[in-house]
Amino acid sequence: MIFPASGTGAWEAALVNTLSPGDKVLMVETGHFAALWHGMANKLGLAPEFIRGDWRHGADPAAVEARLVEDRKHEIKAVCVVHNETSTGVTSRIGEVRKSIDRAKHPALYMVDTISSLASIDYRHDEWGVDVTVAGSQKGLMLPPGLSFNAVSDRALAASKSAKLPRSYWNWEEMIASNKDGWFPYTPATNLLYGLRVALKMLLEEEGLENVFKRHDRHAEATRRAVRAWGLEILCANPAEYSSSLTAVLMPEGHSEIAFRQVVLDHFNLSLGSGLTKLRDKVFRIGHLGDFNDLMLCGTLSGIEMGLELARVPHKKGGVDAAMDYLASQPAAASAGKRAAA
Amino acid sequence: MIFPASGTGAWEAALVNTLSPGDKVLMVETGHFAALWHGMANKLGLAPEFIRGDWRHGADPAAVEARLVEDRKHEIKAVCVVHNETSTGVTSRIGEVRKSIDRAKHPALYMVDTISSLASIDYRHDEWGVDVTVAGSQKGLMLPPGLSFNAVSDRALAASKSAKLPRSYWNWEEMIASNKDGWFPYTPATNLLYGLRVALKMLLEEEGLENVFKRHDRHAEATRRAVRAWGLEILCANPAEYSSSLTAVLMPEGHSEIAFRQVVLDHFNLSLGSGLTKLRDKVFRIGHLGDFNDLMLCGTLSGIEMGLELARVPHKKGGVDAAMDYLASQPAAASAGKRAAA
Amino acid sequence: MIFPASGTGAWEAALVNTLSPGDKVLMVETGHFAALWHGMANKLGLAPEFIRGDWRHGADPAAVEARLVEDRKHEIKAVCVVHNETSTGVTSRIGEVRKSIDRAKHPALYMVDTISSLASIDYRHDEWGVDVTVAGSQKGLMLPPGLSFNAVSDRALAASKSAKLPRSYWNWEEMIASNKDGWFPYTPATNLLYGLRVALKMLLEEEGLENVFKRHDRHAEATRRAVRAWGLEILCANPAEYSSSLTAVLMPEGHSEIAFRQVVLDHFNLSLGSGLTKLRDKVFRIGHLGDFNDLMLCGTLSGIEMGLELARVPHKKGGVDAAMDYLASQPAAASAGKRAAA
Amino acid sequence: MIFPASGTGAWEAALVNTLSPGDKVLMVETGHFAALWHGMANKLGLAPEFIRGDWRHGADPAAVEARLVEDRKHEIKAVCVVHNETSTGVTSRIGEVRKSIDRAKHPALYMVDTISSLASIDYRHDEWGVDVTVAGSQKGLMLPPGLSFNAVSDRALAASKSAKLPRSYWNWEEMIASNKDGWFPYTPATNLLYGLRVALKMLLEEEGLENVFKRHDRHAEATRRAVRAWGLEILCANPAEYSSSLTAVLMPEGHSEIAFRQVVLDHFNLSLGSGLTKLRDKVFRIGHLGDFNDLMLCGTLSGIEMGLELARVPHKKGGVDAAMDYLASQPAAASAGKRAAA
Repeated sequence: MIFPASGTGAWEAALVNTLSPGDKVLMVETGHFAALWHGMANKLGLAPEFIRGDWRHGADPAAVEARLVEDRKHEIKAVCVVHNETSTGVTSRIGEVRKSIDRAKHPALYMVDTISSLASIDYRHDEWGVDVTVAGSQKGLMLPPGLSFNAVSDRALAASKSAKLPRSYWNWEEMIASNKDGWFPYTPATNLLYGLRVALKMLLEEEGLENVFKRHDRHAEATRRAVRAWGLEILCANPAEYSSSLTAVLMPEGHSEIAFRQVVLDHFNLSLGSGLTKLRDKVFRIGHLGDFNDLMLCGTLSGIEMGLELARVPHKKGGVDAAMDYLASQPAAASAGKRAAA
Repeated sequence: MIFPASGTGAWEAALVNTLSPGDKVLMVETGHFAALWHGMANKLGLAPEFIRGDWRHGADPAAVEARLVEDRKHEIKAVCVVHNETSTGVTSRIGEVRKSIDRAKHPALYMVDTISSLASIDYRHDEWGVDVTVAGSQKGLMLPPGLSFNAVSDRALAASKSAKLPRSYWNWEEMIASNKDGWFPYTPATNLLYGLRVALKMLLEEEGLENVFKRHDRHAEATRRAVRAWGLEILCANPAEYSSSLTAVLMPEGHSEIAFRQVVLDHFNLSLGSGLTKLRDKVFRIGHLGDFNDLMLCGTLSGIEMGLELARVPHKKGGVDAAMDYLASQPAAASAGKRAAA
Repeated sequence: MIFPASGTGAWEAALVNTLSPGDKVLMVETGHFAALWHGMANKLGLAPEFIRGDWRHGADPAAVEARLVEDRKHEIKAVCVVHNETSTGVTSRIGEVRKSIDRAKHPALYMVDTISSLASIDYRHDEWGVDVTVAGSQKGLMLPPGLSFNAVSDRALAASKSAKLPRSYWNWEEMIASNKDGWFPYTPATNLLYGLRVALKMLLEEEGLENVFKRHDRHAEATRRAVRAWGLEILCANPAEYSSSLTAVLMPEGHSEIAFRQVVLDHFNLSLGSGLTKLRDKVFRIGHLGDFNDLMLCGTLSGIEMGLELARVPHKKGGVDAAMDYLASQPAAASAGKRAAA
Repeated sequence: MIFPASGTGAWEAALVNTLSPGDKVLMVETGHFAALWHGMANKLGLAPEFIRGDWRHGADPAAVEARLVEDRKHEIKAVCVVHNETSTGVTSRIGEVRKSIDRAKHPALYMVDTISSLASIDYRHDEWGVDVTVAGSQKGLMLPPGLSFNAVSDRALAASKSAKLPRSYWNWEEMIASNKDGWFPYTPATNLLYGLRVALKMLLEEEGLENVFKRHDRHAEATRRAVRAWGLEILCANPAEYSSSLTAVLMPEGHSEIAFRQVVLDHFNLSLGSGLTKLRDKVFRIGHLGDFNDLMLCGTLSGIEMGLELARVPHKKGGVDAAMDYLASQPAAASAGKRAAA
């Protein structure tokens, strides 16, 4: 399903198409966006339950399993997890959470937000048995914001037949009926659909999805090496959950990320991500996803390294060097540059 | 309020922010889009009442008044009217319906869809006491689809405090809170906001809204003269309700608008509007709104006149002549062409 | 040869690569552009001879033959003809002039300006034995101005070996040497080369050159029918030499084309061609070449018909009608519109 | 004067408008482009004399003075110098050469090529008494190639009245006559003129020419520090003549710049400048002009540093570090980033 809306709309579509007022939903507090989705569930009249987290780890498969096992009456109707937490740079292990649900033999629908992971980090809607995947246009798909997506399993579709939350704009049923003949139930975001065709050609045909994922993994590792060389701390506490889309970095105690980002913006026209809610003024975020290459990364890391200097943030030099050492020692295919230029 | 969504989303926003499940809503069947809005109210769990219409007239102020007078208990919470019915080319008299509500001394909120009239046909949100105006980007604002709008009165805002329909994406409260500092509660359709700035400059500063309305009125009258010269019938039955955005034309008995439009598309790359639902295969629609000038209109009417010939639809010649006679006898300001070129 | 220059540069390239100071050149006065080329030959130190003309006919093959026969010593080194005179809307019969040269058994090089005919009107560089064809980017090739071309025969290339006019920028020899490896002897107009690739794909693959020519012929005939219906006179006096790129129209005695064009520009943002030098204030010109379709033509003719009315130029109505009658009676392939939309 | 041509055309215009066949011209061999200009003078029938150079220094004011003093009969009609040699990254001291001419009391016209310096490096046409300045669109003016320029002194204009080289396309006289009313003697490169308006607004109003020059100086110094840190040699031998537009770097003995640049292109999609003619396979060139900022420079230098590693070119690390140290210690105005973003 393609909605003329930003990703938040696709979250809402996932919930209102499959659930009924008062339904219990199990959500996992991985960060700011998980919290927003949880808030949305509340506003829509659902009864979300939030497995608390420290914003430095992904969803804990064991905790999910434990809670589901406990739910003998199967009151929990859905488990909602954010694949890649844009606020923290932590990627949850979606396949392992699936196994937890299976081990608990729990019939809850499984919903996953891939807004900042789709087409950047490996993700398997079918293989991992996800019932509703939520996605958006403005990250890995390299488009302006304004399109969002639901990929839907047969179970989710079946659930939508009896779900009672009111819905109209987000209604899957009418979307499916219209799409059959190439239409939409209301005006689609036409220009973005043209862009989507080009983006998919670039991702699937020109570079190849495997290479896209490798490129993101490589840039993320180079970024982390730079961060460590600066003597700064990566927010994500579990190396198995490092995000390949972005890296959040803790500011040294007593230093403001807001002030730091302002210096970087003013001097280098580089806009870093801010710390959101709980992390306000505590972390800054380095995006390395989408239409991005080695030298854009080096330019980005250079802006940060010089910004740390200008803002008098305690740090060691050598971050860019560490990134370059890694990139040069693990070169992409010699044709990577050429392909991008084609 | 600006939503990253197409116009249908702004309809939903108007309803879910102000109403509660089961609320009575008085709607007026002016055509396909009024019927869709009525259907949406049903899906959202409201109790819409539909004043039936023949799809050739606008909302009847007297009928609205009569129904409201009858509603002594004030169970009707909102009156919803489509300003310009895109399916019929009929423009409802929004100011007169306001007077009907006032005469009935009824407290219902007044909601108006201006999707195909805003910035094309004169419209007064404040002066006409509209509580929620619904609009979109892709008609008179000359942008791609993907932005929609709610203009909201103090009464509507007050109603939103107690309205009980679940809402999150469409929630005015969070939008207002975020907008205060120049932000949005979720990712806005950034590129369209840039386009909006340009469109508003063109409409308000370069051409001037008065001139924009005059231009649309003039093109609509020229179009109707062409239609009459062809011996065809305009769908809109009340001259006081002619639309300046588009003109719907009845096909002669026994002739298919679908076949006719195909001929026009194939030969002239001109895409006319189709007949919708009740009007399927019975009318075609000529759009004359947005970024449009005299010669684009003449080209459009020429394509139709030649198409009628090629599709062997019974008609008289002279439609383009009639339009040109009118346009040349009522010239726009001599500077109109120049301004457009600036 | 592709030069980063406008068409006038390609004229110069044709002359300086093949001729020596004082060389006799036979040129034919078909209109303003032929006169400019003649002026250029003078400035470059050649001795051009001008077969006078009335600006209403193309090059006269018999006159060319007579002059060449007379030139027993073969002092004339080149015959230069403008294929399509943009100032008059007259197309010279290049193939017949070739036959004249052959009948005269004269060894002069044959140079032809196709700036406003290439990719609009049938033209055969090889078949007609042209030695240097001159062309530009901004007409039938649908690009901005800034590229110009020389197509060169073996005889012209041989002549360039001994030609003594100084040359550097326009030097074919270095261009050919560089082009071999895909380079240019100096910075080419890169962005226009990308555009050229797209334009050639549209002309040769998508529409097909035969169809392109037919489209231009059809629009030219429709235009002439409109002109005749208005009771105005076409400048081109010989129907065998009507241009399919543009039509020049004589203003009625006592009426100013300058004033008329201003009215049309002011009211309709339509920019007609002016009368040049000898034809100043006497003719206006209707362009119908390049990226142009039936409805653009009808819009153009409508602007002229209304402009004649507004400027009070004596005329009969019915020009647009005459054009539409012809276009509808001689429809392009039903797929023409579709193809343009693809 | 604005010509629809690339910079090479403006060289030709400078010569053909002011000189006569056989005229002596004093040129200075600063590198590849000076040699090309010298070659052009030969082809046009002039008698250029070339002050030999080692391609590592700019024009020597003393050598120019000595030669002019020697020319008692004033046979030398023009002195031609390239301000910034794009092939070597050496900037000649144009003001000092002016003083040499003055000291020699020689009436020769003074012509300067600013193709790769205009709007990047400080230059004073009037103050330095230059008679013809030659420029192009595709470097500091940030436009595609296709426009070139002559700025002309009264003395040059006077010389053009008696100059005897044939000319038509490049003729100043007709250009000046047409320009008076806002026209051109032939079709100009319209789209680039629109671009020029925007570029001039960016340079003169938004950033300010002083800041533009400072930005280029700063990036050039940072680049040189990187080169030195790598242990590589800058081609330009005289620090007073370092170019702020680009830096040419000598490859270590036994290493091919062609192979090196290919590695950089393949891996990083970064296209460095090649070694031209005498410098073939010996230097590579780093461009840092036009629409360029600190992080683009860091990205560029990173690509080179990693490329040196991948291509196994002997070097020390730390080039990017050296550049960053300098950039951060000499920050541009805190508003520089913001301004670029406005």
